[in-house]
Amino acid sequence: MPSLPKILQCQQVAQSKLFRVEQLQLQFSNGEQRTYERLAGGKTAAVIIVPMLDNDTVLLIREYGVGVEGYELGLPKGKVDAGETHMEAANRELKEEVGYGAKDLQLMKCLSQSPNYMQHKTQIVLARNLYPERLEGDEPEPLDVVPAKLSELEQWIARDDLTEARSIAALLLARQYLQDLK
Amino acid sequence: MPSLPKILQCQQVAQSKLFRVEQLQLQFSNGEQRTYERLAGGKTAAVIIVPMLDNDTVLLIREYGVGVEGYELGLPKGKVDAGETHMEAANRELKEEVGYGAKDLQLMKCLSQSPNYMQHKTQIVLARNLYPERLEGDEPEPLDVVPAKLSELEQWIARDDLTEARSIAALLLARQYLQDLK
Repeated sequence: MPSLPKILQCQQVAQSKLFRVEQLQLQFSNGEQRTYERLAGGKTAAVIIVPMLDNDTVLLIREYGVGVEGYELGLPKGKVDAGETHMEAANRELKEEVGYGAKDLQLMKCLSQSPNYMQHKTQIVLARNLYPERLEGDEPEPLDVVPAKLSELEQWIARDDLTEARSIAALLLARQYLQDLK
Repeated sequence: MPSLPKILQCQQVAQSKLFRVEQLQLQFSNGEQRTYERLAGGKTAAVIIVPMLDNDTVLLIREYGVGVEGYELGLPKGKVDAGETHMEAANRELKEEVGYGAKDLQLMKCLSQSPNYMQHKTQIVLARNLYPERLEGDEPEPLDVVPAKLSELEQWIARDDLTEARSIAALLLARQYLQDLK
């Protein structure tokens, strides 16, 4: 593996309320130089939760996504707030979005979304031993909670309204993990 | 499922060479209004390719990602150029990044990255019956091509330098598909 490129320059070139774009000038170890852009966000972490109601039933949510302009099925997720651990954030989001807390929370894998363009990282958290508890979230409307069977996961993933790469990766990894436990 | 929110307003609030941010004012069917931001890019499509050298060997690439500031393993991918089909784009990217063309190309699933914040869609393309052919790409340095066994996929996914959600989802879906063929 070559040694890491040198970051010759890094400057902010655009900013909105949510997004910040950096432009970077890189020199690769072979001398080649390139200019790149990336979405900055190094300090924000996120969690995506796989809430297991029993060994085969996972709780999905249906939520409007303005990116795709439609209602999408996926796993509950959210940002880790300042001062929170990943586990605390996962349990809070679970209570806000699904109406359950979890007695067992377990980190499974850290996901990136686009290593070339985004700094953002998302931790998959497997949540088991659920108990009913609801926290007030900031959703504009109540989210549908949709139970799905891991044993029928292929049919769920084949749907046109279950498309998010992080949800699909997390569901498939959780199913494999739970199968290997048996 | 509630009826779709109304988009009351949509305006561009930031732009760089690569990224464009839109701010949207939405009214949900229950009357609630919210302001959101999203990364626009509705017209750009992308492909991620699962190149199978044989029934168990997939070809990964190792590439520097300035988002994560490190070398990452993942599947070859890229934008669909104007006038290209998804299949043509997949074959071109495969030749540029891996040094192979494919006689059999098959769409597997359309992935979103973040339905709430991004319009971007990526088609998974399974590539089989490979033949050596290289096209010149625009990479600053040659990419390492790393053969990996689907039968050892858990060990690859456990690595700290294989994190991209789209790659992990595509690899797990391709493995399942190829297993079901047997």
